[in-house]
Amino acid sequence: MSTKKFLLEEKDIPSAWYNIIPDMPNKPLPLLNPKTKDPLKTEELFPIFAEELARQEMNVTDSWIAIPDEVRELYRIWRPTPLVRATGLEKALDTPAHIYFKNESVSPIGSHKLNSALAQAYYCKKEGVTNITTETGAGQWGAALSFAAKAFGLELAVYMVKVSYHQKPYRRSIMQTFGAEVIASPSMSTRAGKDIITRNPNYQGSLGTAISEAVELAMQTPNCKYTLGSALNHVMLHQTVIGLEAEKQMEMAGEYPDVVIACFGGGSNFSGISFPFLRHKLRENSAVRVVAAEPTSCPKLTRGEFQYDYGDEAGYTPLIPMFTLGHNFAPANIHAGGLRYHGSGAIVSQLMKDGLMEAVDIQQLDTFKAATIFARAEGIIPAPESSHAIAAAIQEAEAAKREGKKKVILFNLSGHGLIDMASYDRYFAGDLANYSVSDEELKQNFKELEKII
Amino acid sequence: MSTKKFLLEEKDIPSAWYNIIPDMPNKPLPLLNPKTKDPLKTEELFPIFAEELARQEMNVTDSWIAIPDEVRELYRIWRPTPLVRATGLEKALDTPAHIYFKNESVSPIGSHKLNSALAQAYYCKKEGVTNITTETGAGQWGAALSFAAKAFGLELAVYMVKVSYHQKPYRRSIMQTFGAEVIASPSMSTRAGKDIITRNPNYQGSLGTAISEAVELAMQTPNCKYTLGSALNHVMLHQTVIGLEAEKQMEMAGEYPDVVIACFGGGSNFSGISFPFLRHKLRENSAVRVVAAEPTSCPKLTRGEFQYDYGDEAGYTPLIPMFTLGHNFAPANIHAGGLRYHGSGAIVSQLMKDGLMEAVDIQQLDTFKAATIFARAEGIIPAPESSHAIAAAIQEAEAAKREGKKKVILFNLSGHGLIDMASYDRYFAGDLANYSVSDEELKQNFKELEKII
Repeated sequence: MSTKKFLLEEKDIPSAWYNIIPDMPNKPLPLLNPKTKDPLKTEELFPIFAEELARQEMNVTDSWIAIPDEVRELYRIWRPTPLVRATGLEKALDTPAHIYFKNESVSPIGSHKLNSALAQAYYCKKEGVTNITTETGAGQWGAALSFAAKAFGLELAVYMVKVSYHQKPYRRSIMQTFGAEVIASPSMSTRAGKDIITRNPNYQGSLGTAISEAVELAMQTPNCKYTLGSALNHVMLHQTVIGLEAEKQMEMAGEYPDVVIACFGGGSNFSGISFPFLRHKLRENSAVRVVAAEPTSCPKLTRGEFQYDYGDEAGYTPLIPMFTLGHNFAPANIHAGGLRYHGSGAIVSQLMKDGLMEAVDIQQLDTFKAATIFARAEGIIPAPESSHAIAAAIQEAEAAKREGKKKVILFNLSGHGLIDMASYDRYFAGDLANYSVSDEELKQNFKELEKII
Repeated sequence: MSTKKFLLEEKDIPSAWYNIIPDMPNKPLPLLNPKTKDPLKTEELFPIFAEELARQEMNVTDSWIAIPDEVRELYRIWRPTPLVRATGLEKALDTPAHIYFKNESVSPIGSHKLNSALAQAYYCKKEGVTNITTETGAGQWGAALSFAAKAFGLELAVYMVKVSYHQKPYRRSIMQTFGAEVIASPSMSTRAGKDIITRNPNYQGSLGTAISEAVELAMQTPNCKYTLGSALNHVMLHQTVIGLEAEKQMEMAGEYPDVVIACFGGGSNFSGISFPFLRHKLRENSAVRVVAAEPTSCPKLTRGEFQYDYGDEAGYTPLIPMFTLGHNFAPANIHAGGLRYHGSGAIVSQLMKDGLMEAVDIQQLDTFKAATIFARAEGIIPAPESSHAIAAAIQEAEAAKREGKKKVILFNLSGHGLIDMASYDRYFAGDLANYSVSDEELKQNFKELEKII
């Protein structure tokens, strides 16, 4: 086993985020007001989001948005993150491919989510907000935002998807240690939560429901805004620090990726690593492929429909033009809680529609198999979410071996799995299963979708 | 909140470990053969340890031992580790002190233990060993060795102290994910384990007992050696990469520590951070103070007796001249499982005896209070073991504030606590207690001790 790390200096932390929209051949369709179904105006987002975040969300003209000094200063806690040549993994696979990963797991909360959490907390604080709310799936976003809220002196309430609340009690504890309030969702604390509990008392929650609850609480609390960890344009924007660093680091390595891979929930780490490389494709027609790896049990990119849909289960959010499984899709209780989201955000969906990116679906058992190979080869236990990217990278490396081709693969290690060991236990005990979605269920959901617009 | 990180480059990873013994005014007394009570010869250690490790253990002449390239290559996975100025903590405490911490929690397994694990696995492999055994308390050492064993293709069996096996199931899972076999100790798989279970069926284990079991298994298995994570001289040696890096980083910061602090179990992270600074004291009479922070419930340095004692409960190991509570001392079930060891190793004990270092004891509730202040100020949730160092650093900072003095404090953050969140839950729920040891119990143990020699 050996390792090659490519390290940047603190001065190399990007000074601006990259906004891909100006480079897109077809811009995303507009968000729609959920009541009037008219294109949404920026001001209409102000009641929910900090104004600057709303402006970033709607910005289709500026390719670069300066990162505030206060945010960049906090990025220095753990950024720049290493780019690693996974020579151990290459050897384990006996592949001619060169495999690199960007190690976002080194952040103090263990994932890439802090990149956007600090930005969102900063703008809220700057605008005089005192309280924020959010949802979290596996708890990576909630943990990141808990730290960010504490760093900027904000009070935070987190709705955590019930299945993860029970599967991942340590992430709940982390949020509480940072001083956040954590509520299992669906809960009786909101109308959206009550409604779904009444209909389905045993429902284990979804990101869609947790978003409804967090939005509702924000709207009903003075001086309170809602924040979220994925799917929306401004979140993608903040995450591009990942790919901008990786771009420089691949140069240091003297290689350029043939394929860039990330797991896909709402698109935050996927966009973060891939958009700066997609920019080469859009501007200079580079041949780079970008691949999103999603769970077979929640296959919005591979089997979803491109449609206007709500971002949440109760229908509080704007209508978003996206590949979706329907906002009341109830995903299986897989351990990659961060990937259990029905939709895929406006930018990624447009890129998918335009054939500028690809998607693959990965079964749960394959993700844990890949995770174990990676852990033993590289010494890092990956989060179940990130293991989807590893499994897809292994598929690419195995294809390179079959074809006898050199291939440069870059994937994002979005987070470590030290808090997810219970899922590894279940995997080794043979207690985990694969899950697929029936055509019947999807057809039913798509019929519902068509009623929206 | 802001942060100042002092980063070295990979070329700054030390190329040699520092052996403090040649600089000590009084050398440690010799280890004794447990049967003959004669001074131990190096060869007598060969049946238990890799030969090179045995030679390092007995080396009293060479100040510097070259780090093999293969080990240094693997150090590059996460080393050099950052030195951080804890400006958030300084602000939270409103202290004139400057507080620095060396962040060993960034290793892929979350603690400093990998520094020695890789070295020990390397020498075993090099000498043709195929199987290794060890003990682990909280599981930090076991997790590190599991990865190191996998990296060098060795089979590993880990005896994990029963209380930690149940308190920290995730660390057990980590070891299993890396392919190690993990056995709760005391177990029925060894004579030492059977003996103690027979005497005390509910005994929750101690490091002393787990060591007995691991040594016994190694002695009875062909081509198998025993390894351990603390207390012995060669482990201290390997850990000095911590302090050697910190020395350069304090120079980068333009300061020199008035006091260097680390938590204390068997002494591995304590020696690692402090010996390179103690060298300045021994060679150039610098005024640096070094302080070991131990649990009040396991107070070998503050209340133990300097005596020859066994390193394990069953009496299989050589007799070690050390501050000890007696090898059958049964520590309270505190959550800092890595600090539940009865003895303190030969070098540290001699330094303590000669007044070249200090020790403080910290109660469990104070460690969790300190951990919470630190987490909220610096964004990193510390391991319960490391929280002893944080609590001691806070005491030093508060003293500086009372005295209105500037003071430079350096402590070692030996590991993160992401796997220890259950203990934080119990702390916040008010379920944790303080523990002290009665004079009666100590007196009884010391009487037993005197029978040994």
